[in-house]
Order: sequence, then C-alpha cells, then structure tokens
Amino acid sequence: MRILIVGGVAAGMSAASRAQRQNPDGEVVVYEAGEYISYAACGLPYVLGGEVRGEGFDRLVVRTPAQMRGRGISVRLGHRAEGIDARAGTLTVRGPDGVTTTEPYDRLLLATGADPVVPPFAQTGLEGVHVLKTIPGAQELDASLRGARRVCIIGGGYIGLEMAEMLRARDLSVVVVERLPDLATILDAPLRVPIRGALHRHGVDVRTGVTVTGLQGQGRVSGVETDAGLIRADTVLVAVGVRPNTELAEAAGARLGETRAVAVNRRQETSVAGIYAAGDNTQATHRVTGQPVWVPLGLTANRMGRVAGVNMAGGDASFPGIVGTGIFRTFELGVALTGVTQAQAEGAGLDAVSVDLSSTDSAGYHVSSQPVHIRLTGEKGTGRLLGAQIVAENHLAAKRIDVIAALLGVGATVEDLFETDLAYAPPFSSTWDFPLVAADKLLRQL
Amino acid sequence: MRILIVGGVAAGMSAASRAQRQNPDGEVVVYEAGEYISYAACGLPYVLGGEVRGEGFDRLVVRTPAQMRGRGISVRLGHRAEGIDARAGTLTVRGPDGVTTTEPYDRLLLATGADPVVPPFAQTGLEGVHVLKTIPGAQELDASLRGARRVCIIGGGYIGLEMAEMLRARDLSVVVVERLPDLATILDAPLRVPIRGALHRHGVDVRTGVTVTGLQGQGRVSGVETDAGLIRADTVLVAVGVRPNTELAEAAGARLGETRAVAVNRRQETSVAGIYAAGDNTQATHRVTGQPVWVPLGLTANRMGRVAGVNMAGGDASFPGIVGTGIFRTFELGVALTGVTQAQAEGAGLDAVSVDLSSTDSAGYHVSSQPVHIRLTGEKGTGRLLGAQIVAENHLAAKRIDVIAALLGVGATVEDLFETDLAYAPPFSSTWDFPLVAADKLLRQL
Repeated sequence: MRILIVGGVAAGMSAASRAQRQNPDGEVVVYEAGEYISYAACGLPYVLGGEVRGEGFDRLVVRTPAQMRGRGISVRLGHRAEGIDARAGTLTVRGPDGVTTTEPYDRLLLATGADPVVPPFAQTGLEGVHVLKTIPGAQELDASLRGARRVCIIGGGYIGLEMAEMLRARDLSVVVVERLPDLATILDAPLRVPIRGALHRHGVDVRTGVTVTGLQGQGRVSGVETDAGLIRADTVLVAVGVRPNTELAEAAGARLGETRAVAVNRRQETSVAGIYAAGDNTQATHRVTGQPVWVPLGLTANRMGRVAGVNMAGGDASFPGIVGTGIFRTFELGVALTGVTQAQAEGAGLDAVSVDLSSTDSAGYHVSSQPVHIRLTGEKGTGRLLGAQIVAENHLAAKRIDVIAALLGVGATVEDLFETDLAYAPPFSSTWDFPLVAADKLLRQL
Repeated sequence: MRILIVGGVAAGMSAASRAQRQNPDGEVVVYEAGEYISYAACGLPYVLGGEVRGEGFDRLVVRTPAQMRGRGISVRLGHRAEGIDARAGTLTVRGPDGVTTTEPYDRLLLATGADPVVPPFAQTGLEGVHVLKTIPGAQELDASLRGARRVCIIGGGYIGLEMAEMLRARDLSVVVVERLPDLATILDAPLRVPIRGALHRHGVDVRTGVTVTGLQGQGRVSGVETDAGLIRADTVLVAVGVRPNTELAEAAGARLGETRAVAVNRRQETSVAGIYAAGDNTQATHRVTGQPVWVPLGLTANRMGRVAGVNMAGGDASFPGIVGTGIFRTFELGVALTGVTQAQAEGAGLDAVSVDLSSTDSAGYHVSSQPVHIRLTGEKGTGRLLGAQIVAENHLAAKRIDVIAALLGVGATVEDLFETDLAYAPPFSSTWDFPLVAADKLLRQL
C-alpha cells in the first residue's frame, strides 16, 4: 500500500500520522512545496506580535521531517506536485533540483490548502507588500516591519483584525482599509459595534467602505491608492481573504463543489477513485443547514486529515461536518461565532429569529467582570438552536461559544440550552450564565 | 389565589417573581427569617477578600423588599415560619415582634435552604468562631478578621478552599484542617494533586486526616484541639458542610428523599398537596445516573424556584434535573466538575472508565498558556459520556467544563464530544482543545 500526500501542513500531516498508525506496513510519503511541515499557521500573528514563547517562528513547528521519519513517514520538502494521471495512478512531482519524477500511488491525498488572495493591484513587485501564510513569508514581513512606521492592512476580516492588534503592540501606526461598509462582516451588524470601538480605543485608523485601487512607491511601497484618496504606508499587509488551491484536483478531474472548493463525501473521497482531499482546499457540510460550506480553519483541516488518513489506509472513518465555529482576538476583545448568523440562516431559507443580550462574563459585582455581548439564533416552529455570536471584553469569555457549538453538533434545541447545568461561581459566571439568559429570551420569541 | 413562600433568597425570590409574572392577579407573600432577601450568598467570600466592587456586602443584594413590592410581591423580613396545617391550608408565622399569626394559603413553597453544619465541638459560645452563610454572619466574620492574625478553617471542601485564598489575600496566616485524608474529596484523587500544590505555594498550612475534637479559649477562641495536637488560631471558620432545612417540611408531613432533602416531583411538588419545595432544601434527580441527589447550588436553586413559581401560579413547568456541575476558584486554580466522577459512577453501579490528560488551555507556544488537567469519564458498552473534572492553572479555563455539561444534559456520547466543533485560535485553545484530546483518548478505552 503506497499512500502519497500532497501538502504537509495541518491536514496533510494529520493524514500521514493516522494512515501510518492505521497501517504501519504501508508506505506514506508527503510532498510539501515549502520549507516547513506541520506548522501552526494560526500562530504567525502571535510570533509577529511577540506573544510566542522562546525561539519564535520555530516554536510553531509541531513536528519536523526527522520526527516524522522516526514514525515511518517520508517527507520531501521543496517538492511541488505538478500533475496527476488518475487512470494510471501516478503523481508527477518536481523536486527542489528541478527534476521531475512520476510516482505511483494506491491512494492519494490532496491537502493543498488555501492561498491568500492577491488582487491585481497588489501584484506590483514593490517591496513591503506582504500576505500572511507561511513561516518564510511571515519572516519577510517581520523584517519589513523592523524599519516600518506606518502599516496599512487591506481587509477587515479576522486576520486583519488580529494583525491590527499585533502591529499596535509593536508601536506601529496602523490603518485598516475595508471595502465593505463595516469590519468583521461575517457577524450580524449588532455584534460589530464593540469591535469598531476597540480599534478606535487602541488608535487604529479604520476606513470602511473604501476600495483600494493601487499601490504607490518606487522600489518600496509608499502608499495605498483608494477611491477615498491616498493612504501613506511603508508596509502593506494584504488580508482580503483566501482561495482554495484546487488546480491539482481539477487537473485530476475531481469535482469542485458549489463553494468552489473540492467536493468530497464523508470519507473525504473526491469524485475520482483513489483520490482524497482534506483541509483548506476542501468543502464540508454544515451540520446546521445541511448545505455545503467552505470554512478553512485549523481544527477542521486536522479533523479532515485524520479521517482521510484512516480511510486511505484501509480503515473506516467519517467526517461529521462542521458547525462553523470560529474565534479570534482583537485587542481585549474575544469574538466568536458558531452555527449560522441571522443573515446566514435567512440565506439558507431557515425561519430564524435572533435575540441580543449584553451582560457580564462573571458576577456583575465581582471585580473581574467585564461586558459580554451575545446574539443567539433559533428556528421558529422547531425550536432548534441555529447559532450564536459572542463579543467579550475579556477575550477569554468568547470561548463560551463552545457550549452552543456542542449543542449544535447534536441538533439540540434552544430549550436544551436553557436547561443546561452550567458552572457557576462568582469569578466565573453570573448565577444564570449569559447563554442561559439569552436562551430564556429567545424561547419567548420562538 | 394566595401563594405563600417561606424563604426569600435564591429559590424563594425566583419563585415569587415567576409566580407573579404567571398570575399577576394573585397574591404572593414571602416570609424571610433573616434581614435580607435575594442576596448572592456565593459572593460572600469575595466581599471578605476585597474582590467585590463598590459598597461591599450591599452589592450582593440583587433586589430589595421595596423593589419586590413594586412588582406586586409582599416581603416580610424577620418572619419565621413555625408550623403548617396542610389540611387547613395554613402557615403559622412568628413576626419580629414575637406575634404569631396564622396565614391561609392556596399554594405554599418551602424554600428554607440549607444551614452550615455546626458540630458539637464548635458549639462553645466562644467569640471568633464563625460559619459563612448570611450577610450579617459574614459581617461578623469580617469584623472578627480585622483583629486576627491566624485563622483556622475547619473543612477542605470548596468553601474552605475559596476562603483560604480570600484570607491569604488579607495577609492572614491560614491553616486548613480536614478530617479526610485529602482536600476536595468530591474529585477523584488525580485531580486533587494540583490543589494541594497551589495551597502549598500560597503558604496555606494544610492538615489532612486530622480530626477536630474541641476548641480552646476564654471569651475568644485561641486554639483548635485535634487528634494531632493543638492548632493555635484567633479565628475559626467552620466549613464542614451544609444540611438541608427540612423541619418545616417534615412537620407538614412532606416526604424526605434518600438524600434526606425534601423529595419533589418534576413540578417541584412535595408529597403534600399544595406544598412545593425548591432550593437548597430540596432533592433533585441526577440526569446522568437517574438517581436522587442533593447538590445545593445557586443555579439549581434559582431554576427550581422558577419552576415552582410557574406551577404554583397555575402554569406548567418542569425541572429537568441536574448534571451536577460545580466550579470554584482557589488561588490561581479553577476547579470544576460535571456529571459523575469515577468514584460516583462506580457507586451508582455504572461500568465507567476514566482517562486523565494534562495539557495547556491555549496553544502551548502562546505566552498565555497555562497547564490544565482533565479527567473524562465514559460508560463502557454504550459509549455514553458520564462526566468530567477539570483543574486549570488559569482558573477561567475550568469553565470549559460547560461543554461537557451541555452534552451530558442531552445524553450525548464521548464520540459526540470528540466530534464537537470547538473554537480554536492560539490565545484561546490548542488546535485540538483539551476536551477533544481527552475524548479521543477515552474513545480508545470504551
């Protein structure tokens, strides 16, 4: 049994480990185009902001090729997969020396991930223009920031907002430009208000409803041209979104889904026999709506990789789908969501209703208590829980989204949430923790 | 419709509010023996330790009698219920002036709570010997502590451990004496180890396996006599447990349960028609074992009170039972449990297996990450989730017990937990948050 894996980060390495464990006699080879495997890409902002212990970027590497070899897995760095002959069962790979080889496989996993979108205006070749994805890319950004004074972040999504905090921690002047009329538009509007407030308090210059048209500079970038005038900046971070890397899958004849990511079944099998897909290039099923979604996140990638690894090696595992849980921090705020927002529920044709509640994370009288805002969404008629959004002024309280994520995973109702026996003591919660109060309020609307 | 309520703290006032809302034309009268209603007893340690904002003890009062009157509820402070004639439907009450009246009722709620156990050795009349339950009692303790130097806490349960922290925060010398061989024996043994470590680090003198035999002193306490010698102390806090106040219920002929608390059905009705019970005096059903339990806690009391209030006023509500969730802080540690421990599961005749895991609360490379310890318990054969225990060195991470509490409430399996789409970003969690890793480990044992 020869298992080849294209891509050695989250999904690819999870799959390699599981496949090897499932079938220790099989051969597992991982081809990674970059210089690192198995690194925590989500940690890059925190290295840049000085919140990573010890040796910095290297600390993000979970496992090295040598460690994987010790576990019976071959890792080939700097190897780029260039083509697949699905009928013959071969993968064409170009090595770092430029030599191309054709490798036979029994099972092939495409864990090619997603790449940051770089709009045409940013493809200038100017220095000081960056995206955040890989360790070497982040090291270049780090070097760029050392001489910088004023950084323009293009994009007000979660990476832009995480980076705004990290750059302010480096005492840089920060401008965030967002084409849409608001930041963090994945959230329903009421939850976005405190985010704007936090950025304002921390001196971030926020410009929403502004479209970037080009970059200025000679050699190094000096400004960002927009439909609302020029923004001077000596460094630019482009964070306008990511796109699944599906070229290889398409070339092999694998079907893409409605989301334009690779379509798979619950076993992570693509439409081409013997070829699997997992990670940020792959579509998932939303357990709340039943619809296909593409939400490239670390836990999902790891989980898909495990499932693919087990199945490729002859086992039987099933990916349960996602409920769309996400979380990020920007300054003191924790921002989290799970399930669907009111807007997403309506888009999916659900008869949804949402309630908003502002409360405190711990007992209001306790010195530790900080404001927290929750929006809870349920389905009329069925009483089914559909989703929640939390913005917490002590960021850690946003992690309480997990209670709702857990209940969404088992198809629970708003009443189930209300009846949940949550932990209470004054430094942790109000007697009725805020998700319970929101559930009580929502029950009266269903 | 005349509804009388005996006891005006958590369950009693919740019931009063709900009954009034359910039937605004009915009469609701609350008799409270003490001087305060509707106060957060769980907050008392934090007032004593200086962690309550503003005016201190008064801050714990959620609602005053005047506020309740404005909502159509009569509150009689200093009124002690002395007897019930269930056949006649009357309650005998002694007022603060010593005058006894007989009050007719249509529905009667016994929300008489629980009182700290005061063993015979502590019934000496010496000054400086305290229990923690009421605001006036805590004010006396506060006064006692002002001149104190060395405090002996008798009892190593959660109140004793919360108070150990608060007294160290006042720079007092603290000894904790526990009769059992360990502290926090509600937890399985492996989880108790970090608790002992925290107390040691913070200079608390812990003496376990030591039985108190008497108190010494003239006028004021000067020492605690034990089977391991004398412990000098100028103040003593007795925190050896609480006992449900069932005298009134028993006098009315209401049945007690196996736990010796008042037995009720899901509507909070006692065995005597027209008489309800709710709160710390009342037995509940454990949703994991199906067995009767008595776990006097604030959220449970509030929830029972709501159910009783709705039903007394002609509505139809049902108490879902509890899953036994609890949490407390001692120094930097958060300690939480839900469902059953391995010991409790075995006691309930369940075929249980537990796994232990030590991990970090946020990504291990992130500066914020702190150790966390979890024990997860499941049922062999069925794969059902049975319980969890968490000790977290950043106390807030213990609140993640709620994910398991939510799943226990809906009868979920360990696999459901493993498949839960938990929130991940480096300042909040590892990619695989520790409850998922524990679930993965437990799945291999089931």
